[in-house]
Amino acid sequence: MSLTVVGSVAFDALETPFGQRDKILGGAGTHFALSSSFFTDVNVVGVVGDDFGDAEWAVFERHNINTDDVEVVAGGKTFFWRGRYDYDMNTAHTLDTQLNVFETFDPKLSEKSKSARLLFLANILPTIQKQVREQCENAQFVAMDTMNFWISSMKDQLIETIKVVDCVIINDAEARQLTDEPNIHKAAKVILNYGLKALVIKRGEYGAVLFTKDNFFVVPAYPLESVFDPTGAGDTFAGGFMGYLASQVEITEDALRRAMIYGSVMASFNVEEFGTERVDRLTHDEINERFRAFKRMTHFEEIPFEKSAAA
Amino acid sequence: MSLTVVGSVAFDALETPFGQRDKILGGAGTHFALSSSFFTDVNVVGVVGDDFGDAEWAVFERHNINTDDVEVVAGGKTFFWRGRYDYDMNTAHTLDTQLNVFETFDPKLSEKSKSARLLFLANILPTIQKQVREQCENAQFVAMDTMNFWISSMKDQLIETIKVVDCVIINDAEARQLTDEPNIHKAAKVILNYGLKALVIKRGEYGAVLFTKDNFFVVPAYPLESVFDPTGAGDTFAGGFMGYLASQVEITEDALRRAMIYGSVMASFNVEEFGTERVDRLTHDEINERFRAFKRMTHFEEIPFEKSAAA
Repeated sequence: MSLTVVGSVAFDALETPFGQRDKILGGAGTHFALSSSFFTDVNVVGVVGDDFGDAEWAVFERHNINTDDVEVVAGGKTFFWRGRYDYDMNTAHTLDTQLNVFETFDPKLSEKSKSARLLFLANILPTIQKQVREQCENAQFVAMDTMNFWISSMKDQLIETIKVVDCVIINDAEARQLTDEPNIHKAAKVILNYGLKALVIKRGEYGAVLFTKDNFFVVPAYPLESVFDPTGAGDTFAGGFMGYLASQVEITEDALRRAMIYGSVMASFNVEEFGTERVDRLTHDEINERFRAFKRMTHFEEIPFEKSAAA
Repeated sequence: MSLTVVGSVAFDALETPFGQRDKILGGAGTHFALSSSFFTDVNVVGVVGDDFGDAEWAVFERHNINTDDVEVVAGGKTFFWRGRYDYDMNTAHTLDTQLNVFETFDPKLSEKSKSARLLFLANILPTIQKQVREQCENAQFVAMDTMNFWISSMKDQLIETIKVVDCVIINDAEARQLTDEPNIHKAAKVILNYGLKALVIKRGEYGAVLFTKDNFFVVPAYPLESVFDPTGAGDTFAGGFMGYLASQVEITEDALRRAMIYGSVMASFNVEEFGTERVDRLTHDEINERFRAFKRMTHFEEIPFEKSAAA
């Protein structure tokens, strides 16, 4: 029961139609770790500058997240991203990106981080993802994210990385771009054929789809009348998904399906407020209540139609 | 156990990336009637010209669809639509529309058609939909479709029509346009508040959503590697939905949910070939097999997470 995530720990500045924040805790590694911490023990591997303050460390501490492998670069500045969302919350408009200490991020994994049963490689350089994966020889289930930038600039290296993991978690546009295949089902086949056990394709307001060798499972998004801030939703999904899997003795098809639901549950909370604010104060009761809501909104009785029995 | 549909019976000419057809049986009333005929007895109310031939009538006869109320205008020509789809199968490009006898369509319902337990008002002038609804005093469940053209040109009359039916079946763009509300959940509330028992919002490749007063139910689309011809998919969905409801003694939440699945099943077959070709030769075994596939792709065990029980 342990999980390691390698990814960015950052500051975000956000503008949405509902408000703004100047400098709040963000980053893929952060959102993932926070979300997964509700299900399992988490190690986060990242890098920050010495501008990373007590309030930020406290979020990790509150959730018993092991930050021993978050390197602090003396005199350095933490990765900073400024973005804006319009009413179409599906698209983030980047206003400023300062990689700072993240530019030369060289993940250093302690024995504890290396020996985790599950590993998540958040969106970083594909060659670094591969190096990290190779350091975690005993990881039983390794998942990764990526982004359009790496697909267009480093496709070959990216595919080499995909070949050494068990699961890819990406969005539909990325799946299409990676395969040059507009149909999502054909694209999924191509990606699965790199040797994956599972492929998760996220579809924003339409939910997410799990592809395995012989199965296909669809999860809708939780019905929200307003999305307050979508930043980190994908990593929060991945955190719920991987965190739940880490809590399970075996990674079966049934466990993967429930993991898809828990991922969707966590993402649905994440977007209700800015940054980590909502997930930070979440309870297990709230999580399970929303899990049951997913059951209610997808369940139907399997009664085949019989013409002779019709009214 | 009976259902009446009022709508177009037409000829279509279609071009898709996969082939073309010059003049095939089409029309909302046709696709609806054919789909619903697998579940119940159907009366279709429409109008054609005397160019409507034996081959077309034979499709209705094969499925025991009552066409007594399809008026044949001597010397008239049947409604004709020519359309083209590119690889993005979500958008139909209209190349030619000849309303012909449909331009002055004045539905005349026999006592048999008027006395059906369920009624579907396919996409026609909202004022005619309302007149028809008022003729069917004893109909227990009345559903309607509409389109962007009526929403922009006759919104007030359209809303008056919505107020006298039980269910609206439209797509997401229409729901947004009707309410000036980009969020689909907020739009649904506005439309339900016109006094509906149920609202179905179709989302193309993402499936469909059922809104009732206290519930929300999501159905994904069946995973298809290629959509051959989407013409009539929406009416075929509505036909499966209403046909299944007509077969049920009571229209409960559970029945509505299964009707959503049967609608999706029928639509998924419809798009596999041109026009009515696939549905025309469908069997009940094929329908039930695909119904079970929908269960497989949405089912998960409802096991709440317990931290103390985690691996």
